[in-house]
Order: sequence, then structure tokens, then C-alpha cells
Amino acid sequence: MSMFENGLEKNPANYVALTPITFIERAAAIHPERLSVIHGTLRLTWRQSYERARRLASALAKRGIGHGDTVAVMLPNIPAMIDVHFGVPMAGAVLNTLNTRLDACAIAYMLEHGEAAAVIVDREFSAVMQEALAGLPKRPLVIDVDDPEFNGPGERIGDIEYESFLADANPEYAWMPPADEWNAIGLNYTSGTTGLPKGVVVHHRGAYLNAVSNILAWPLPRHPVYLWTLPMFHCNGWCFPWTVAAQAGVNVCLRRVDAALIWAAIRDYRVTHYCGAPIVHNLILHADPAMRAGVTHRVSAMVAGAAPPPAMIEGLDRIGFELVHVYGLTEVYGPTVVCEPHEDWATLGAGERAALNARQGVRYPLQECVTVVDPETLQPVPADGETIGEIVFRGNITMKGYLKNPDATQAAFKGGWFHSGDLGVLCPDGYIKIKDRSKDIIISGGENISSIEVEDVLYRHPAVMAAAVVAMPHDKWGETPCAFVELKAQAHATEQELIEHCRRQLAGFKVPRVVIFGELPKTSTGKIQKFELRQRVRSTQAIDP
Amino acid sequence: MSMFENGLEKNPANYVALTPITFIERAAAIHPERLSVIHGTLRLTWRQSYERARRLASALAKRGIGHGDTVAVMLPNIPAMIDVHFGVPMAGAVLNTLNTRLDACAIAYMLEHGEAAAVIVDREFSAVMQEALAGLPKRPLVIDVDDPEFNGPGERIGDIEYESFLADANPEYAWMPPADEWNAIGLNYTSGTTGLPKGVVVHHRGAYLNAVSNILAWPLPRHPVYLWTLPMFHCNGWCFPWTVAAQAGVNVCLRRVDAALIWAAIRDYRVTHYCGAPIVHNLILHADPAMRAGVTHRVSAMVAGAAPPPAMIEGLDRIGFELVHVYGLTEVYGPTVVCEPHEDWATLGAGERAALNARQGVRYPLQECVTVVDPETLQPVPADGETIGEIVFRGNITMKGYLKNPDATQAAFKGGWFHSGDLGVLCPDGYIKIKDRSKDIIISGGENISSIEVEDVLYRHPAVMAAAVVAMPHDKWGETPCAFVELKAQAHATEQELIEHCRRQLAGFKVPRVVIFGELPKTSTGKIQKFELRQRVRSTQAIDP
Repeated sequence: MSMFENGLEKNPANYVALTPITFIERAAAIHPERLSVIHGTLRLTWRQSYERARRLASALAKRGIGHGDTVAVMLPNIPAMIDVHFGVPMAGAVLNTLNTRLDACAIAYMLEHGEAAAVIVDREFSAVMQEALAGLPKRPLVIDVDDPEFNGPGERIGDIEYESFLADANPEYAWMPPADEWNAIGLNYTSGTTGLPKGVVVHHRGAYLNAVSNILAWPLPRHPVYLWTLPMFHCNGWCFPWTVAAQAGVNVCLRRVDAALIWAAIRDYRVTHYCGAPIVHNLILHADPAMRAGVTHRVSAMVAGAAPPPAMIEGLDRIGFELVHVYGLTEVYGPTVVCEPHEDWATLGAGERAALNARQGVRYPLQECVTVVDPETLQPVPADGETIGEIVFRGNITMKGYLKNPDATQAAFKGGWFHSGDLGVLCPDGYIKIKDRSKDIIISGGENISSIEVEDVLYRHPAVMAAAVVAMPHDKWGETPCAFVELKAQAHATEQELIEHCRRQLAGFKVPRVVIFGELPKTSTGKIQKFELRQRVRSTQAIDP
Repeated sequence: MSMFENGLEKNPANYVALTPITFIERAAAIHPERLSVIHGTLRLTWRQSYERARRLASALAKRGIGHGDTVAVMLPNIPAMIDVHFGVPMAGAVLNTLNTRLDACAIAYMLEHGEAAAVIVDREFSAVMQEALAGLPKRPLVIDVDDPEFNGPGERIGDIEYESFLADANPEYAWMPPADEWNAIGLNYTSGTTGLPKGVVVHHRGAYLNAVSNILAWPLPRHPVYLWTLPMFHCNGWCFPWTVAAQAGVNVCLRRVDAALIWAAIRDYRVTHYCGAPIVHNLILHADPAMRAGVTHRVSAMVAGAAPPPAMIEGLDRIGFELVHVYGLTEVYGPTVVCEPHEDWATLGAGERAALNARQGVRYPLQECVTVVDPETLQPVPADGETIGEIVFRGNITMKGYLKNPDATQAAFKGGWFHSGDLGVLCPDGYIKIKDRSKDIIISGGENISSIEVEDVLYRHPAVMAAAVVAMPHDKWGETPCAFVELKAQAHATEQELIEHCRRQLAGFKVPRVVIFGELPKTSTGKIQKFELRQRVRSTQAIDP
């Protein structure tokens, strides 16, 4: 033992577990009367939000829910959803946020697999939850949230209503940080497009570091007015419930993503920041320009969840939105790669700048490493912008593993890297650019076609609202690209027009042989469900002209 | 073991030791061609700075210096001083920065106590270092820094010159993060005003967290132009060598604190940020206004090291400097308390705002706790702004302890708190205000007099440049306040005038009985050495009028 260890051990004064719970305590202590939440006519301060979280922790603890227990929630972006991000871990329990679009079968699977000891459910989703609960061997404690802002149908199904649950609890509950910062804080099931969902277990240390990283990466100023366009059930809202508390900002709640509601919130509450998948930004961008009336301040937007088409980046630029492009996965707490801008990009043309910004970028400030490796050797690919490899991560903003799934966990961490399953290249400046999910690459006559490259070209057509390109079986080439396109309202384009548009900008073998028009199937987080499109074309054969 | 632990252990992909070394790697990877250092005519980029640090680590490793070894440095704020903050820990060694004003006896004590394996010394300090080395039982490896910007006297005394040491080393040295983030990164001797200096041991985890906290607390934007007015030997420059790397900023070096040099640097390099003790800010503020010519941009200043007089805060406000007031000690990595402003303070008058800003404030964003406790019960004092207690800390930005000094370590951590030895009050809004060091309180007729309160009044007199108030023995009252005052150049004031000035604003028993004019003795970090003043008055007796 060196002299720097001897007698210099950890003690309660110099070592405390890292946990994002401390951020709400700090906000409440220093800015008690600042707004924490806006929801319809409801206004909360940080003092009140902290009290609500402590009440929730106390109420859970009173019912014996604590360390190692799971609390599942099925909630839109409402105040209770912010409470649970603090109150559940304050009780020592693990927060499992359920996707609100899940069916009863998937919910039942997650409640059983995650061993939920309690369920908190919004009345909007009570019917599907009731169905899910009916299939469980043991019914957990069920708490209804009856949001005054929700006027739709749905019965209370639980043992107690959420506000009563809080009312009867201790607002000064003496919560403790976790005994170990490696303890789980969240359980997030990946909305796997095939197979059983996997339960991603994330810990206090990682949540803390990524919450801070969000501030540095954006960068997010003190006291932002943050609009909840991104579902909090998705990777804990990319850690933003904790990030907004760390900066003592305002959470502007939003039960559903709707262009008119979003523009009204931006105008009325002077929203400064919001996050979302490309589909959300396109919705905002292509909304009736009349909705923008009265918005004169600058808005900062963060995009991830799918590669944003350069045309979208240019469009936001045009309406004066500052865009930060980030990339990540549930397994790395949401975004943990950022397309950090260089000052000299500002001097470039809009198109060139958008192309640079459309790249996924570099590691988050507090993530240790992200790179692209050869899948066989696990050595980094050359930074030539061409050699495709797998995007891999190493660092503290990486999950503990998959719950009760040692095989998947081991595979995910093969060779000392977390394997994203996404394919990309390293550009000469070290920035990563995604080429595709492994399974989305189209292989035509032995040549790889990046579906994203073809989609980017389609998005540049003025009539295109959304586009997805998948492989279509082809008797000669093996596969050829097939495009699914959703047009903007009141816009028109023919199949031949779009094919011609692509031919002008792409090599012949990359041009879609077929274009199919219609609304695209999307997940609740705005990801286009390519697996469904792929199924549609599975039985089809392209006939070469 | 709960299901959230089972099979979900740490592995190399999801757990990496926190260390601020990673910040220079990131800056070099993402912004390789951005300026990292300006020093006279020298310009370095982050790619070059990272290479230099790796060369240094490689050269040290080649000589067998690594884990558990100490590398002592005696350097002004020059490029080598930035290198060592990365290169020494990259080698696994511990950086011991020596105060450049120390005498040979103190240096010899620290080199021996800290068991320095190598010493890096600037030619300016080679004479005193030579003298110190002569007294050591075993001479360490000695490396001379011969800075081209230094034209003064001083011989090379070492085995090799620093640039040659680097030249012969590996610029791609494969450094490793520490095996444990609790490993020591720094050894900083407190310039104790009495007794033997104590060796404060700080670790990678704390340095990492405080480097990030500096960004959040200021807040410091990306790519700041940071002027090195604060000595890097003082608590590792409050962690700013790591902070500036984390934001890929520019380090503007400065061999000595001089008003003309500072204003020239602010103008020529468009300096955006600097730190310093109140004395440094006063020097800048009271410099010949002609020096300010050409400075039109906004400058942000951080002040700590001693309580800033409200008059100084107002003065900086007047010349358009934004001031952030922080507070800390060597034991907590420099500042870890910040007077975080509230938006509504902006609507107050300058005097009222300065009074609020003169308070030490609240915990740093990533420090877990700071409060004021009753020294007997260790319970927080009431937040009444009046009850005096000791300022104590708990959290990750707190030292490991004092090197080879278990008694002092145990005393410092008594009852699960780090004890600062500073006395303060909790204001009703939770902000801390320092009243004094325990030993600086003046007890007159059983009443406590805060020397800071009396000094603040003296600073409001237009002729006063610096003021210090200490206890003077008094046969009737035990002690009474005695003021030492340094006047501004070309300014005049008599003892009677200053006493009258105090009488108008203070209760009678707080008014200094005696005012002594002359230059005040200061430490190299600008702290006024009250112990010396106290010695001067020890034999004196005040005679009551």
C-alpha cells in the first residue's frame, strides 16, 4: 500500500454515491420558489416538486417497497412522471417506465419479467393496463393517476389515486442516496422490433453523469424552459428529468405531441429547449406557418432517435431554430454522442453545414469512448469516411446489462465494448456517421446500399414528409431498394418523379425500383418501423425495367 | 443479491475510472487544431498539448516513475505547468505543485515529506531549489525548465532540460486511466500560517467532478479564452487546467501578476475569463484607466481566496466585468461553494446586489453538501443570518486526507463532516456568509467582532486599497480591533478620518482603536497574512480614549 492510500480511506465526509436525486434537492434548496412544472393550469415550484418526490418515496416505503423492488409506470409527460424519476429512486426502488403505446400482452410480459411491486398508471391507459394485470400471477399495488387535464375515457382501476397516495405521506421523508452508485435506478425495455423485449438496467452513476453531460453537450443554460415533446418513458427522457432539475429549469408538460399545442407552448411559456426524434421536428417545421405567430425568441432543439435528414436540419435553420444533433441508444441512457459544432462551420453554406451536422458526431463530454470497429477484429476502422464498421461504446454512461439475460448481456459487451448494432464510418475528422442498422443495409449485386443515403435524397424532394427505404427481394440482384413515402399535406408527386429525382443524385444501383405512397408505421418515439415495411415487401419481387 | 445485481457486474465496457485526464484526450480528438496555449510568442494546439503530456508521461515512466510516486514542480503559470497536470497523472504519479514563494527550508520539508521522486523547476527558482535539494538525504531526478520568455537570472541545476526530456519521449504513449478513481492525483501543501504545512491528498474522482463543476457553476462556455492570473500551484489552479481542457479553451499564460500585462492580454487575446483572489481583482480595477483602452468585450471574473469586499464587487460591476464569487479551501479542491445569482437580484441597486454577492453562497453543482453547524452538536445552525457556526462539507469534492498525518485527518473529518475552520452564518435563503476564520474573530468584552465586517467598511473608504483588522490585546476588554491599511497610490487619509468613517457605520465596540498605515504582508495567492500583523500587535496595548 502506497503512502497515498495508507490512512486515506473513504469516509462519509469525502465519499458519497453519485445519484441524480441530489439535483432536485439542490434546486429546491437554492431556487425553492422558481417554477418547476407547467401543466395546463397547474404550476409547481421546485420546493413543491421536491416535496412531492419525498412524499412519493415515503408512501412507497410505507408499503414496504424499497431496494431491489421495481415500480412500473405508464404515464404521459405529466407532473407525476417527473415525480417518479426522483421519488422512486429516493425509496431505493427501480423505475420502470412503460411505453404508453404497448399492448396488454407486452405490458404483462414486462410487469412479470421486471417483477413490478407497484404500478402507477394514467387513466388514459387503464383499460390496457387492466387487461395486462389480469394475466399476472400476482397483482402488484396499483395506483391511478387521474390527471385533471385529461377528459377522455378510462376508469380508475387501482387501489388508490396518486394524489391521495401522496397526501397521506411525509413531505420531509429522509431519503438516503443509494448504498452504492452502481445500484440500479432504471429498467427500460427496448422496443425491440423483433423477439422479446430486453430489460436494460441503468445505474445511478450513469444517470448522474449523463444528466450532467446533457448540460455540457447542448450546452443547456441555467433555468431553461424545457418542453416535453420527447416521451419520458423513452430512456427516461434521455435523462432530462434529472438534467432540468440540475439546472433548476421549468418542465413544460405535454400529454401528446401536436403541432398546435407545441407552437402554443413555445409562444405562451417562451419555451427555450425541446428534444425529439426527426418526426417531431418535421411536424413542428411543416406545421401551418400561422401557428408560429408571436414566436420571436430563439429556440434550441435536440434531435436523435433516428438519423435526421439534412433537409430537416436546413429547414430548422431557416426558421431560426438552433439544432444539436445527438445519437445514442437505450443501453447508453439515450444520447451519448453529439455532433459538436466547430466554429468554422458557421462560414459554410447551409447545405454543407447541414451535411456536417447530419453526422452523429463524437463522444458526449462525460462518456469515455465511442468509435467504429471492424466487427471481426474489434480494431477501429480507418478514419476514411468509407470503411463501414460497428459503432461501439466504452465508458460510464453504459448500462449494467440486460435483466435476467446473461447471454444477451455477454454478447452486448463482447471484447470490452458495448456493441450498438449500428453500422457507421469514421470521417477523417473523427466524427462518426451512421450508415445503417446492420439489418437495414441493402445488399444489391454484392454492393452495400445505405438505406439512409437513399432516404436523405428522398427527403430533399419538396413534396416528401417522411421516407423509408428497405430491401426488396430481387431475383437477379438479390435485393434492390424499395421506397415508402409519406407526402406532405396538399403536396403531390408521382412514383416516376421521385425515381427520377433519385436518379439525378444517386448511382443507378441505389435508385429505388418501386415507390409506395401512404402513411408510414411509426413507433411512439417516432421511429419508422422498417420491420413492418420489410414484411410488406417480403413476398414481392421487383421486376427490372 | 437482487436481480438488479445478479449477472450485472462492472466490466471494462461499462465502468471506467473517472479522471480529468480524459478531458485533454477529448479536446485533442475533437478540436486538434484549436489553440490550447498562448505564451509570449509561443502557440500550441490541443493536438500538441496532448502530445506533450503523453511525452512527459512516457519520459517519467521510462525513468521508473509511476503509481504512488510524487513529482514535485516549482513553476509559474507557463506551458510546462499545464503539461504536468496531465502528464504526471498519465504516468500514474502524483503531482505536487510547490508555491513559488516558498523558502528553501519549506521546500526541503515538502520534498522530503512528499518523497518526491522527481522535481521540475523553472530557472527563476533554481537557486532556492538548489538550496532545498542540498538538505535532502537523497537527491531526486531534477528537470530544469528554461522558459524562453524568462530573461532573469538563475542557473540550470538539473539532470536534463525539460524540452530535451520531452524530445526524447513517446508522443503516442499509451497511458492508462488510474486503476481506481480514488487514487491520488495531487498533493498540495497548505500554506499554513503556523505549524508545519499539511499535505492535502486529492483524488482523480474529485478532480474530475470539480473540473466539471467549475463549468456549471460559472457557467463557462465552450472555448473560453482563460487568463492565468491565479497561480496553478494553488489547489491545482482550482482545477482549471482540467476545466479549460474539458471546454477546449485557450490557456493564456502569465509568468507574473502585473496590471499592465493583464490588461494587454485581455485586449490582445480577447480574454473572456480569469480567476483570482480579491487582491488581483483590485489590482486590475485600480490600474491606470488608460490601460483599459481598446477593451470592449465582456470579461467574466471569478473571485475567491478571501472574502471579497462589497466595494470591490461594485467596482468590477462598474467597469462591466461579470463577477462570480466562489469559496473553498485546498481540502475541497479550491472553490466548491458558489454565490449562485438569482435573476431578481438584477433589479436591485448596485450596493444591495454587491452585498448579496459578497456572501459565499451554496454548494457547487457537483458537491453534495455544505452547511454551517454548531461546533459542539454538529447540528446545522438556524438560518437566521446571525448564529455563528463552523462551515462544514460532505461530498465527493473533498480530499482523501492529510499525507502521513492520521491525527489531523481524523480531526478534519470529525463526525462525518470535513471541518473548514471557517466561521459563518446561514442566511434565511440558505446562503452561507463567512464571518471569519476561527482565529480571526476578535472577542471584545465578551462580544464577537467579525474582522471581515470591519474590513468591509474600511474598503468603502475611497482612499483604501487593502485593509486587515486583527485583535489587539486590551487590558479592559480583552481584545479590541486594530486596523492595518494600505492606501491607493496618490490617495491620502489620516487615522482619525478612517476611525470616524468606521464610527459612522459600525457599533462603537467594533470601531478600530488604532489604524496603522503601510504595505500589507501577503501570501503569493494574495491572502493577507494576518498572523504576521497579529504578531506585530501582540506586545502592544491599546489605550482607550
